[in-house]
Amino acid sequence: MSEIIPPCVILNEPQLAENIGSVARVMANFGLSELRLVRPRDGWPQERAWVSASGANWPLDNAKVYQRLEAAVADRQIVFATTARNRELRLPVMTPREAAAKLHEAAAAGQNIAILFGGERAGLETQDIALCQGVVTIPIDPKFHSLNLAQAVALCAYEWRTAVADVAPPRFKYMESPLADQAMLDGLFDHLESELDAGGFFHPPEKKPSMVDNLRAIFARAGLNEQEVRTLRGVITALSKGRGRVLEKLARKREEAK
Amino acid sequence: MSEIIPPCVILNEPQLAENIGSVARVMANFGLSELRLVRPRDGWPQERAWVSASGANWPLDNAKVYQRLEAAVADRQIVFATTARNRELRLPVMTPREAAAKLHEAAAAGQNIAILFGGERAGLETQDIALCQGVVTIPIDPKFHSLNLAQAVALCAYEWRTAVADVAPPRFKYMESPLADQAMLDGLFDHLESELDAGGFFHPPEKKPSMVDNLRAIFARAGLNEQEVRTLRGVITALSKGRGRVLEKLARKREEAK
Repeated sequence: MSEIIPPCVILNEPQLAENIGSVARVMANFGLSELRLVRPRDGWPQERAWVSASGANWPLDNAKVYQRLEAAVADRQIVFATTARNRELRLPVMTPREAAAKLHEAAAAGQNIAILFGGERAGLETQDIALCQGVVTIPIDPKFHSLNLAQAVALCAYEWRTAVADVAPPRFKYMESPLADQAMLDGLFDHLESELDAGGFFHPPEKKPSMVDNLRAIFARAGLNEQEVRTLRGVITALSKGRGRVLEKLARKREEAK
Repeated sequence: MSEIIPPCVILNEPQLAENIGSVARVMANFGLSELRLVRPRDGWPQERAWVSASGANWPLDNAKVYQRLEAAVADRQIVFATTARNRELRLPVMTPREAAAKLHEAAAAGQNIAILFGGERAGLETQDIALCQGVVTIPIDPKFHSLNLAQAVALCAYEWRTAVADVAPPRFKYMESPLADQAMLDGLFDHLESELDAGGFFHPPEKKPSMVDNLRAIFARAGLNEQEVRTLRGVITALSKGRGRVLEKLARKREEAK
């Protein structure tokens, strides 16, 4: 398998330098770095782009500028166009997730890939889309489909990163303490139960077994680790003995006062 | 099955009105409408928010402002916190996709749900996250993890919309007792905390905040329903007062015996 090279991002006739900078920022967020600009309205470079990139300078520093979209896509095997509108073109229409899977497959096969985005106002023309191998439609609410350019790039870049890295969802970070075993949990429940007995909690007595089961279920669901079991035993002791100690002291003082 | 009501978006201490407006815009893109602001830095309303919303005015027009995060989450059963950093809290950590699936399931069961985002500079504090039932980590490149606030909201909102569109409404088993909302959980924690204070549990005192957060995380993970919260309050009372009552009775008897 070839090395996986991420898609380059092509902006066709972008208008605002701030948006180009925001695009660079989200590219960096999701591990993309190659940016191509076709006829940026205000020319290139534009200082405001670097300002809004918030430090993600490298996509801007290395951005290539083209006068024609055909030139920008010339070295690509697979280019997908993002668009909100339906077209008459008979191209496959994909969600960002489906597109990311297809792009990943192509990149793994050593192909050069790209995602194409239209300008802020008009989006892509049909003739631009005709240069592409597929259409990506972001599932936005038809009631409000004015999607910011950088947001569109962010969603596609996020799906790319999720597809490729297949980022294993991070699990519990706090694993210094191992999960408590059943013996330890039994100790906790016995402790709790005997203190609740002393406090007259189980009433009426015939309901005790189901009350105990319900309490156990709460802590079972929580997936306690050893440290947490120790903490909860401390809680039980503080609640039952701590208050008792205070009251004992009071009682002793009362006696002494006599 | 209940009607699916999308999550509300809670911004904790947002700084820039422009970003609040951009958040409203992406909310509208993906069918979300309920926005809550906790201590917006520059006050509220701010005209610049409406400017950057590009016409998505309704989340801004109806935004509610809170002074305390506790109040903003009080009527919610499920709140997920988005954060880039790992925490010591033992809460489930999810990708945006996993979170969306869980939120969808909860909403289908009629629960009130929310996604919480921190401010631009500092993100969320551990004590804010301790109010939540889970943590959402966006899989950004560790080499450049400065993710714009509106982008973070966009990704979560996009995953929400995708989850709702994709997944056949899950058949969710109703619990006999509805899940407790945050106000009810707050009552439980306040009760526990004050009794633990009385019992001298928090030692040394400077460790109290993190001890409280860790205890909250245990019960947050357990997904308590209303009946269970009532049971646990009975447990706390039985442990703290019950034992006290027994000791008081003993002390009284001793006095009488004299």
